[in-house]
Amino acid sequence: MLKSHADLLDAYALLTVRSGLNITPGQQLVISAPIEAVDLVRRVTLHAYAAGATLVTTLYADDETTLARFQKGPDASFDTAASWLFEGMAAAFKAGSARLAITGEDPGLLGSQDPEKVSRANRARSKAYRPALEYISGFAVNWCVISCATPSWAKSVFPKLGQEDAIKKLWTAIFSCSRADLADPVQAWVEHSANLRARTDFLNARRYSSLKYRGPGTDLTIGLVDGHVWKGGASPAKNGVICNPNIPSEEVFTMPHRDRVDGIVRATKPLSYGGTFIDGISVRFEGGKIIESHAANGADAFAKMIDTDEGGRRLGEVALVPHSSPISASGIVFNNTLFDENAASHIAVGQSYTETMSGGNALTPEDLAARGANKSLIHVDWMIGSGEIDVDGVRSDGVAEPLMRKGEWAA
Amino acid sequence: MLKSHADLLDAYALLTVRSGLNITPGQQLVISAPIEAVDLVRRVTLHAYAAGATLVTTLYADDETTLARFQKGPDASFDTAASWLFEGMAAAFKAGSARLAITGEDPGLLGSQDPEKVSRANRARSKAYRPALEYISGFAVNWCVISCATPSWAKSVFPKLGQEDAIKKLWTAIFSCSRADLADPVQAWVEHSANLRARTDFLNARRYSSLKYRGPGTDLTIGLVDGHVWKGGASPAKNGVICNPNIPSEEVFTMPHRDRVDGIVRATKPLSYGGTFIDGISVRFEGGKIIESHAANGADAFAKMIDTDEGGRRLGEVALVPHSSPISASGIVFNNTLFDENAASHIAVGQSYTETMSGGNALTPEDLAARGANKSLIHVDWMIGSGEIDVDGVRSDGVAEPLMRKGEWAA
Repeated sequence: MLKSHADLLDAYALLTVRSGLNITPGQQLVISAPIEAVDLVRRVTLHAYAAGATLVTTLYADDETTLARFQKGPDASFDTAASWLFEGMAAAFKAGSARLAITGEDPGLLGSQDPEKVSRANRARSKAYRPALEYISGFAVNWCVISCATPSWAKSVFPKLGQEDAIKKLWTAIFSCSRADLADPVQAWVEHSANLRARTDFLNARRYSSLKYRGPGTDLTIGLVDGHVWKGGASPAKNGVICNPNIPSEEVFTMPHRDRVDGIVRATKPLSYGGTFIDGISVRFEGGKIIESHAANGADAFAKMIDTDEGGRRLGEVALVPHSSPISASGIVFNNTLFDENAASHIAVGQSYTETMSGGNALTPEDLAARGANKSLIHVDWMIGSGEIDVDGVRSDGVAEPLMRKGEWAA
Repeated sequence: MLKSHADLLDAYALLTVRSGLNITPGQQLVISAPIEAVDLVRRVTLHAYAAGATLVTTLYADDETTLARFQKGPDASFDTAASWLFEGMAAAFKAGSARLAITGEDPGLLGSQDPEKVSRANRARSKAYRPALEYISGFAVNWCVISCATPSWAKSVFPKLGQEDAIKKLWTAIFSCSRADLADPVQAWVEHSANLRARTDFLNARRYSSLKYRGPGTDLTIGLVDGHVWKGGASPAKNGVICNPNIPSEEVFTMPHRDRVDGIVRATKPLSYGGTFIDGISVRFEGGKIIESHAANGADAFAKMIDTDEGGRRLGEVALVPHSSPISASGIVFNNTLFDENAASHIAVGQSYTETMSGGNALTPEDLAARGANKSLIHVDWMIGSGEIDVDGVRSDGVAEPLMRKGEWAA
C-alpha cells in the first residue's frame, strides 16, 4: 500500500516529535525553519502539543530576505546580527525548551555575492548565536535537526528535473533516508539506534589513541582526546531526555585532540557553507592546525571560514560512516550537511561537543581546552569518506588495527 | 492609469518604510507578521535595507499553529507565553531597533474555543509582552502598524464573496484608506499629517478639562489629565525619529484621567479581541472604573478582558475621528482595530501612552499614576463614535463648547 505525501509528511513529523525530540510534557519547543516548511511545521506543532508541549514557537527564515540584505543593505549590515533574538533563544534553552532545526535553505543562495560580505555576515551571526549554541553543543536540552524539501534546495540536488519532480524526488529520498516511510518509523529508530550503540560500545572498549586514514589524496592521523567517548544514535541530553539529534543519522563520532592532527586530507563531497558551494577541498594539518588549504571552487569562502577564529583551523569532531550507508547508497549528493555527513566518514572544524569527552559536560572551558577540546564560533562538517578509504585504529601501544577497509567496517 | 497589485503593494511597502517607520540608516527593524504576509514583508525588507537598515528580522505568526494549541495543547499551555522572545524584542528596542507590526490575523480564529483558555492565554501573552510593549507605549523608538489582506481576514469582512474576490476587495480598501493608491503616497501623508496637526494644535490650545458624549445609549463624561497632549499623525519618538505609528490613521487622541470617567457608553462597532468577536458592548463607568458591562455576543470574553488587571477597567486613551473619515466612508466594517478605530471616535481600556501627557515620557510610574495615567497589561480600543454622536469640550470653568455634532467637527 502506497502512502500519500500527506501521510508520509505526518509520519515524518510524528517521528521527529517522538524519536527526534522526545518532547516531554511541560516542555516548550523552539523551531527554526525555512518559510517553505510551513506545512511540516504545522504537523510537528500538532504532534508536539499532543505530546504535552506547553508552547511551540517557530522562527521562520526566508532566503529571499536574506538575499535582499546582500542586494540592498548598507555596508554596516554585514557586521550585524540579531543578537537579541539569539539571546532570547538561549534564555529559552536555559529554561528547558527543546529545539528543532529544520534545514532546507538554498545551498547556493549567496554564491554570486561578495565573499567578503558573506564571510562577515556569517561571522557576525556565529558570534551572536554563540550563547544559544552553547546549550546545543553542550547537549543541555533535547534537540534535533531534520529537513524539508524546499524548491531551491530540490533544484540544486536535481538540476535537470522540473521543479515539481525535483521536490517530489527529494521528499522521497528524505522519507526513505529518515526511515519515515517504514510501517513503524519510531520502532525502526529504536532498532537503528541499538545498532549504532553496538558500534559505539565496541569503539569505546577499544580506547584508540588515534585514527589513521589512507586513500586518494589522504594520509592523515587524527589523535583522539584521552577519555574520548564515541556517540551515535539516541543519546540522553543533560536534562535527562533521550533524543536523536539528527534524523537521519548513520554516524558514530567522537572528539579529536585539537593539537594532535597531522597529514593531508582530501574532501570527497562538496560542502555548502553559509550559502556558498565549496568543492575540491584539500588541506594539510600540522600539530592539529590547518596550515595549508586548497579548493577548486569557493577557496576564498573556505579560507575565510577557517579564519573565523583560532579554533576554526582545528578539529572538533571526527565521525565514521560506512560507505554502504543507506544515504550513500541512494547515490544522491544532497548539498546539505545533515544528509551528506551521514553518507560518508567526516571531520568537522570548530567547536567540540563536550558530551564526546568523559565527564566533559562538567568541565570548565579551561579544563576542556587543557584536555584537547576545541573551541570556536563555528562547527562545520566536511566529508572525507568514500569507497576508497581505509581507516586504522591505533592503540596507545602504537599497534594499528584495521577499522575500515574500502569504506566498510572491518572490525 | 491603473496600477497593478504588485505596484500598489510595493508603493504600500515603500510608504511604510518612509512615512510609517521613517527608518534611519544604521537602525535594525523587527517585523511581526502573519505568515500569509510574506510577499509584503519581502517588499518592506527590500525598502528598509535600501533606506539603510542594518538588519531586518521578521517574526512570523501562523493562525493554524495558534489554533493547534487550543486543539491539542495541555492545560498548562494556556498560562505559558514566549517570554524569552518578548524579552529578546525588548532588548532589540532598547538597542534602538524600529518596530513594524503587520496585522491580518483571522479576527474570529478562537471564537469556538473555550473562553477561559483564550483569556488565560491572552493574559499570559500580555504579561510576557509587557517588557517589549513598554518601549512601544513609551514611544522609545519609531514604530508603525500596517495590515495585510489575508484569506481568513478577507473572508470575515466579505463573507458573501469568493476567497479571491474578498482578498482583492480588501486590498483595494487597504490601499485606498492608506492613501497608497495616490500618485505620491509619501507626499499625501505629509499633507494629511499637517491637517491632523492643525486639529491637535486647536485642541491643545483649548485645554479642555473633560469631554462630554451624548448619543443613543451614550451619556458619558471623560475627564482629561492635566497637561494632556493631543496627538495625531506624524510624531517624533523619543529617539528623535518622526514616524506615523498607524497607517491608516485619522484619529487625534489624548490621555483620559483614570479616575474621572462617569456615565454610560454604547459601542458602535464590533470588537475583535484575541481571536473572539465581541458585539453590542454597553458599559457604565463610575469614578473612572467600569462597574457594569454588557455585550450581546462575547460578553464573557469582554468581562475577562477588562478583568486582566486593575487597569483593565479604566481608560488609557480617548480619540476623536469624524464620521466622514475616508475609512468610515468606505462603509466597510473591517473587524480589525487598525481600521475600525480610524473610522470612528473611540476609547481604549488599559495602558496609557505617556507621550499624551506633557513631560510624561520623563515621569516615573508613580508620578504618572498620581497624575491620572492608567497602567495595564492591555490596551484595547473600541469604537463609540457614529453619525449620531455629539461631543462637547468642557473648559475648566465648566463651560461646554460644541466639538462634534452628529459625528462631524463642529469647531
